Amino acid sequence: MERRGAGSQEDVRRHNLGTLLRLLHVQGATSRSDLVARTGLNRSTVGTLATQLADVGLLRESTPVASGAAGRPSIVVEPCPRTYVLAVEVGVEHLSAARVGLGGVVLKRCALPQDPGDQDPVRTATKVRALLEELLEEAGAEQVCVGLGVAVCGLVRPTDGTVRLAPNLEWVDVPLGDLLKDELHPQLPVRVGNEADLGARAEHLRGAGAGVQDMVYLSGEVGVGGGIILGGRPLTGAGGYAGELGHMVVNPTGRRCRCGRSGCWETEIGEDAVLRATGRPPGTPLADVFAASRAGDLQVQSGLREIGMWLGSGVANIVNLFNPELILFGGLTSDLLRVLEPDVRASLGSTLHAPRAQVRLELPGLGADSNLIGAAELAFAPLLSDPLGVLAAARRRSGRLLRGAAPQPVAALTAGV
Amino acid sequence: MERRGAGSQEDVRRHNLGTLLRLLHVQGATSRSDLVARTGLNRSTVGTLATQLADVGLLRESTPVASGAAGRPSIVVEPCPRTYVLAVEVGVEHLSAARVGLGGVVLKRCALPQDPGDQDPVRTATKVRALLEELLEEAGAEQVCVGLGVAVCGLVRPTDGTVRLAPNLEWVDVPLGDLLKDELHPQLPVRVGNEADLGARAEHLRGAGAGVQDMVYLSGEVGVGGGIILGGRPLTGAGGYAGELGHMVVNPTGRRCRCGRSGCWETEIGEDAVLRATGRPPGTPLADVFAASRAGDLQVQSGLREIGMWLGSGVANIVNLFNPELILFGGLTSDLLRVLEPDVRASLGSTLHAPRAQVRLELPGLGADSNLIGAAELAFAPLLSDPLGVLAAARRRSGRLLRGAAPQPVAALTAGV
Repeated sequence: MERRGAGSQEDVRRHNLGTLLRLLHVQGATSRSDLVARTGLNRSTVGTLATQLADVGLLRESTPVASGAAGRPSIVVEPCPRTYVLAVEVGVEHLSAARVGLGGVVLKRCALPQDPGDQDPVRTATKVRALLEELLEEAGAEQVCVGLGVAVCGLVRPTDGTVRLAPNLEWVDVPLGDLLKDELHPQLPVRVGNEADLGARAEHLRGAGAGVQDMVYLSGEVGVGGGIILGGRPLTGAGGYAGELGHMVVNPTGRRCRCGRSGCWETEIGEDAVLRATGRPPGTPLADVFAASRAGDLQVQSGLREIGMWLGSGVANIVNLFNPELILFGGLTSDLLRVLEPDVRASLGSTLHAPRAQVRLELPGLGADSNLIGAAELAFAPLLSDPLGVLAAARRRSGRLLRGAAPQPVAALTAGV
Repeated sequence: MERRGAGSQEDVRRHNLGTLLRLLHVQGATSRSDLVARTGLNRSTVGTLATQLADVGLLRESTPVASGAAGRPSIVVEPCPRTYVLAVEVGVEHLSAARVGLGGVVLKRCALPQDPGDQDPVRTATKVRALLEELLEEAGAEQVCVGLGVAVCGLVRPTDGTVRLAPNLEWVDVPLGDLLKDELHPQLPVRVGNEADLGARAEHLRGAGAGVQDMVYLSGEVGVGGGIILGGRPLTGAGGYAGELGHMVVNPTGRRCRCGRSGCWETEIGEDAVLRATGRPPGTPLADVFAASRAGDLQVQSGLREIGMWLGSGVANIVNLFNPELILFGGLTSDLLRVLEPDVRASLGSTLHAPRAQVRLELPGLGADSNLIGAAELAFAPLLSDPLGVLAAARRRSGRLLRGAAPQPVAALTAGV
């Protein structure tokens, strides 16, 4: 039962401002008459709200589009990317970062390789700082940062951004949120999430999963992650740790996983498994493996078939467990699907026929950017709940966004990698 | 965004009547002042609604309880079980049925064994009819039936109650809903659902899962089913087929499952697997197996340890995938947990530590009745959405609830079983 009577006029206004801004953030340029139709609010309310958002610089009017109906063309508004977030993805083999403007536009991006032998959390935070410094170089004084969102390949406690476990980074209970806060302006909000959960969120919002109620997004670089949307809402579980598809055992006689079990999905289809199955030494770029397969290397092709069998086996479990409308193959699994789609489809043949008939297998709509865009969405969320309040707080933050002395240049950090 | 302006005064009244009745249906006897507190409606509205529900016989006043505060004790109201549903569970080895009054009280129950060699859908419908006839024998003219709910161990298309697949009944696309409608008054609503989904619903509503947001309920008799509640809502998936935990492969080198894959969880821990692992011939009652284990039979104990390993392996996957607060072991898995709890807890040791720390393993609060009570809840749902409308429709149905000639007595159907 909904609580009644608790909403003041101010709550209603904040809610409506958020609704309008969220819609524009996702849809981009929209006419006022479309906003009226989509929000169910009346024309004068939409006008007032849009003016309030434009006054503070969150929206701007853009060129009116021709209206099909007679009369004046409706005014078109669009989100203004002057308000932005910082987004970071902490992977096993790379760190990437972007400055993302309201509306989801990537304003600038940069990346650093991670050294597989040097994923120390403090050093990682230093590298992230260097990336952020580079992103902020060209941000003018009129641009406003409302937060930092971080995607990491591990289980994250949502309340404080602690990484409870990231097997492939060998991290246990790493306070990543706090480490990054130490580098930043003390009032800049920092939010950390699981990369696959965030990738799913981005794809659901503005990628191949837009409008889909039940979907599974696979992510991965060295391991495999899963982000799951059910009934239009993210699957979180009791503590925010749900969806660890990479740690579903598919082969109990398989190799030991870094999580402690044996034959987890990621040990059977992750990077190490692909190299092992295809007889390639550790460290070989997967692109080389796929190129060898395309060139007709029989050993590689045979090894990949084995990977395809395990990939398909996990996908079949997903179909039986979640009855999704869509499975998106991101990251590593994106490359695998391109090569192994026939094998995966063959495995689908063994699923229960009712859910099988409903599922589509596709690649992410945002390409390799899903997780990073998802991190940006995590950082945008407070603004979209309370546009004026969050923006005002952001403007009150004076001074540099990064604390302390000028940073090490990114070039120095890549030396020797 | 919620639709605005669509709700008339009549919609609001229906919604509030439903809210009040649902609350009483689940909570039982409640004082009017508690109803005010719980619904957020004001005292006079609650009084008016309660009077309307009492006038049509859905509620009755019961003995006032002493109030802690000074002044008159608040009037206590409770649901009146004169309005009831029929509930049926179609299992592989048994059919059970109950007449369940508003408030969830089982007014009468009966059962028939299923002959493993004779689960023909039409004959099953005939047996169900016999059970319903027995249930209805003592129902007086003042009692009102608002529907039939059926729980079946298979994948059910929610729209028409067709069983798309029930491997252990060897049913494919059986129109169970229609078969039962043919036996009943043409206007009596018939709704069919998956037994584990319904068991989860019942446990979440009034069993061990009350108040729990994220839970997994395991069911099973010959096979294994799963019903999953996430964020307080049932996991349905795109077509209502989600949660088929029994058809998650845990042992790819295991035996062929009736679904077509190999090593599904139910082939490794289901009835056949238990008998095979413990060296008992097909058809041996599992109670005998567990008794032999308790009596110290080493072969049986060793076989059960193997089952315990697979049971634990599936439970560990569930913890990693769903991060549930609670896993309830119903049906067959209830007996298994009693014997094998140490083995299952040992398997939990290998799950990701963050979700592991949040999960409890328990037995269902409704004992063996979860699925049947869930079927009743499915049948009650329309009444709880529109109490006066559904009750009026039920009263308009004249004549016998069962069509055609007097039934075969139940005794005749059990002959030879």
